[in-house]
Amino acid sequence: MSTLSLKPYSFARRLPAIAPMGAAQAAKKRQVIPLSFGSPHSDTFPYKPLIGAATDAIWTHGRDSLQYGGAGGPVIVLDWVARRSALRSIHVDPSQVLMTYGSQQALDYVARALLDPGDHAWLEGPTYFGAVSTFRTAEAILTSFPIDEDGLIVEEVERALEEAERLGKPLPKLFYTMPNFHNPGGISLSLERRQRLAELAYRYNFFILEDDAYTELSYTGQSLPAIYSFAPERTIYLSTFSKIIAPGIRLGWAIASQDTIARVNTFFQGSKASVFSQEIVAQLLTRLPFDEHLASLNKLYRDNRDAMVDALKISFGDDVTFSIPEGGFFVWLSFPEGIDTSEFVKDAEERGVSFIDGKQFFINGGGARHARLSFSYCSEEQIREGVALLAQSYYSYLDNRRR
Amino acid sequence: MSTLSLKPYSFARRLPAIAPMGAAQAAKKRQVIPLSFGSPHSDTFPYKPLIGAATDAIWTHGRDSLQYGGAGGPVIVLDWVARRSALRSIHVDPSQVLMTYGSQQALDYVARALLDPGDHAWLEGPTYFGAVSTFRTAEAILTSFPIDEDGLIVEEVERALEEAERLGKPLPKLFYTMPNFHNPGGISLSLERRQRLAELAYRYNFFILEDDAYTELSYTGQSLPAIYSFAPERTIYLSTFSKIIAPGIRLGWAIASQDTIARVNTFFQGSKASVFSQEIVAQLLTRLPFDEHLASLNKLYRDNRDAMVDALKISFGDDVTFSIPEGGFFVWLSFPEGIDTSEFVKDAEERGVSFIDGKQFFINGGGARHARLSFSYCSEEQIREGVALLAQSYYSYLDNRRR
Repeated sequence: MSTLSLKPYSFARRLPAIAPMGAAQAAKKRQVIPLSFGSPHSDTFPYKPLIGAATDAIWTHGRDSLQYGGAGGPVIVLDWVARRSALRSIHVDPSQVLMTYGSQQALDYVARALLDPGDHAWLEGPTYFGAVSTFRTAEAILTSFPIDEDGLIVEEVERALEEAERLGKPLPKLFYTMPNFHNPGGISLSLERRQRLAELAYRYNFFILEDDAYTELSYTGQSLPAIYSFAPERTIYLSTFSKIIAPGIRLGWAIASQDTIARVNTFFQGSKASVFSQEIVAQLLTRLPFDEHLASLNKLYRDNRDAMVDALKISFGDDVTFSIPEGGFFVWLSFPEGIDTSEFVKDAEERGVSFIDGKQFFINGGGARHARLSFSYCSEEQIREGVALLAQSYYSYLDNRRR
Repeated sequence: MSTLSLKPYSFARRLPAIAPMGAAQAAKKRQVIPLSFGSPHSDTFPYKPLIGAATDAIWTHGRDSLQYGGAGGPVIVLDWVARRSALRSIHVDPSQVLMTYGSQQALDYVARALLDPGDHAWLEGPTYFGAVSTFRTAEAILTSFPIDEDGLIVEEVERALEEAERLGKPLPKLFYTMPNFHNPGGISLSLERRQRLAELAYRYNFFILEDDAYTELSYTGQSLPAIYSFAPERTIYLSTFSKIIAPGIRLGWAIASQDTIARVNTFFQGSKASVFSQEIVAQLLTRLPFDEHLASLNKLYRDNRDAMVDALKISFGDDVTFSIPEGGFFVWLSFPEGIDTSEFVKDAEERGVSFIDGKQFFINGGGARHARLSFSYCSEEQIREGVALLAQSYYSYLDNRRR
C-alpha cells in the first residue's frame, strides 16, 4: 500500500512535543568550551581498576552476571550503598536499596508509581530539567517554589500547603528536592528546613523525592543528615554511581521503606538494573581504595571550582552574584534585573563557550536573569578561557541593549 | 513524628498490584531444573572476546564511553544493526535505529509514546507477559487474538477491525506481535499473513509493534521478510543483543520511520542506552566472527530442542501435542481439554522441575491446558531429566483427578 494513503496518527498526550534539554545540551559542537555540560570530568574515571573489575565480572562471574537480572544483583553493592548511606544518617537494611539504570530510571519509575495523570507534583524553581520532563511524562501538574542560600524556602511550601488545605485545593502527591549541592543552584538545604519539610510530608501525606546525586562531592567533607532520616516512611531517596565512578556504568539507586520499595519494584520486570554493571561495580569496590579515589576527585573539582570563582571575579567583578558552592558541579549566576541570559546563549557559543540559560530550569518561564555554569567537565584552563568568553558575550549584549 | 500518625497513601492506578511474572520466574530455587527460564544458555556468551572488548571500551574509548550518552553511541553498532536487518528485507538508514536498554525499554517507551490511558492495544493470546505488564502500565485496554501453526490468525483480526469500524467501537492504536519463533508459541507468522497484517495497519491506522527478539535463532537458516518491510510507516520493529551476545549487556533496538523514531526519541533524556555497553558491543563486533558465533549457538539450541522433543515423545507419547519450533527457545505444550497445568506447577517444582503454566500468557485467564517449556537455558541432560519429572508430575495429577 502506498505512502500516499497514510493517515495522520495521534501519538499519546504524554509524549513531549520536542526533545528535552538533555539531548540539546549534549549535541553542542566539540570546539566549544562546554560550561553547559553537567558531566563528571573524564580524568576522574578509575580506568585501570575498571578493566580488572570488568574482566572479573566477565571471566569469574559472567555465567550469572551476563544473564537477565531477575534474581537481583550482587549483595556487595547493596551492602556498600546501605553502609555508605549511614554517613548521611540513613540506617536501612540492604533489602531497602533498589538498584536502577541510573537515577533517571529511578525518577521515572517513582514518578509513575506515585503520580496519576492530573496529580500534583511540587518542586523547586530552579530545578533539574530531567526531573521536570519525567514528571510531565507522568502527566503531573507542576508547581514550583523558590530557593535561597539555605536551599528550598520551606516556609513558602508550608504556607501553600496550609492554603491548599484551607481552600480544599489539591495537595501534592510528591515534593521533588535536591538537598545537597543543588542542580543548578549550587546550594544545600539547611538542617532546620530538612526537619520541617519532613514534618510537612507526614502532616500533609506526600512523598519527598530526595535526589542526592552530588552528596559525595562535598569539598568541606561536611554532610548533613538526609531528609530521609527524618521521614523514612514518606521519603524516597535517590543517588547514583554516575558522579563517583562513571555515568556510563548507568547505575543508581532508590532507598525507601520496605513497603514503598516493594510497590516501586512491581515496575521492574525486564528492566532491572543490569547485573553485569552491578558486578563490575562490585568488583571495583573490592579493589578501589574508595576514600582515596573520592579525595582525589574532590580535589580536582574543588580546584576547578576555585578556578571558576576566580575567573568570574576577574571577568565580571560585582556585575554577577553567586553563592560559592561547597560541593557538586554548578555555579548559579544571578545577573542584574532585566537581563535575559537566553539572549546571548547563541552569541556565546559563536565565541566558543556554552552555558545554560536560567529559564531552562524553571517550569513557568522565570529565571531569565540566571545562568548555570558547570565546572566539572572542563579543565581549569578551559574554565578560565570559557568564563572570559562568556564575559565578552555578556558585555557585548549589554552594549547592544544600551544602544 | 511517629509512625503511628502515618496516613494511608494512594499510589498511582497504573502501578501493578503484584510483581509481574518475570520476577517470580527468576526467584525459583537453584536446585530445580528451570525449564521455566526463558534465558540464553550461559555457554553461548563470548567470554574471551568480551574481555578484550570491555578492555578496549574502557582503555581506548573510556573518556567518551564512560560518560553520559546524550550524543549517542558508536556508529559501528547502528551500522551493524542496519546491515543485518537487510537480511529480513528491512532497508533503513542507521539513523532510523534507536538503541535501547534492552528491548524491554523499547517496549516501555513505545507503549507510552503510542498509548494514552484508555487506548486499545491488541495482541496475541498467548503472548509475552513482559509486554502485557508494559501495556497495562501504560493503562491500555487489551484484547487478544488466537494463534495457530502459522502464527497470529490475521483473519480474526481483520473481522474484529471490520466489526469495530461498523459498530463505531474503538480501533486499536497498536498491535503487538512476535512473528518469528513466538514466545511462548514457538511458531512463526506466514508470509501471507505478514502482508495482510501490514495492509490492515494502513487501512485502520494502527502501529504494528513487531517484536523480533529470536529472529537470529533460526535452526533452518530460513528467514521471512519482516512485517516492517511491508508497512515501514506503521511498524516499529524491536530486536535485541540479549539472545545473540548476552542479556546482561542490556542492549536492544527499535527501528521505525524517521518521523516515528524522532517522536519516540523525545522520551530519551538521561535514560539513553549506555554508550559504554554500546562501545563494548562495537568492539566485540569488530573482533567476533559473528557468523561462526551464531552457527555455534544455534547448534547448541537445536541440539537442546531435539533433546526436548525426544524426551517429550518418550515421556508423554501422544498425550501432549506441540509444534516443533524451527528456532527460538520454546516448546508450547497442549494438554487435553479439561487439564489445568497451573494445578501441578507446585508439585512439579517439588519434584525438581519448573515450567510456566499456560494461563500466565493470556490476558483473560484462558490457556489453562497449555504449558511453556524452555530448552534454552538447561543442558541436554537437564532437559531429559526435567521432562521426565514433568511427566511424573502430570500423570500423578491425572491419577489424583480420576479418584
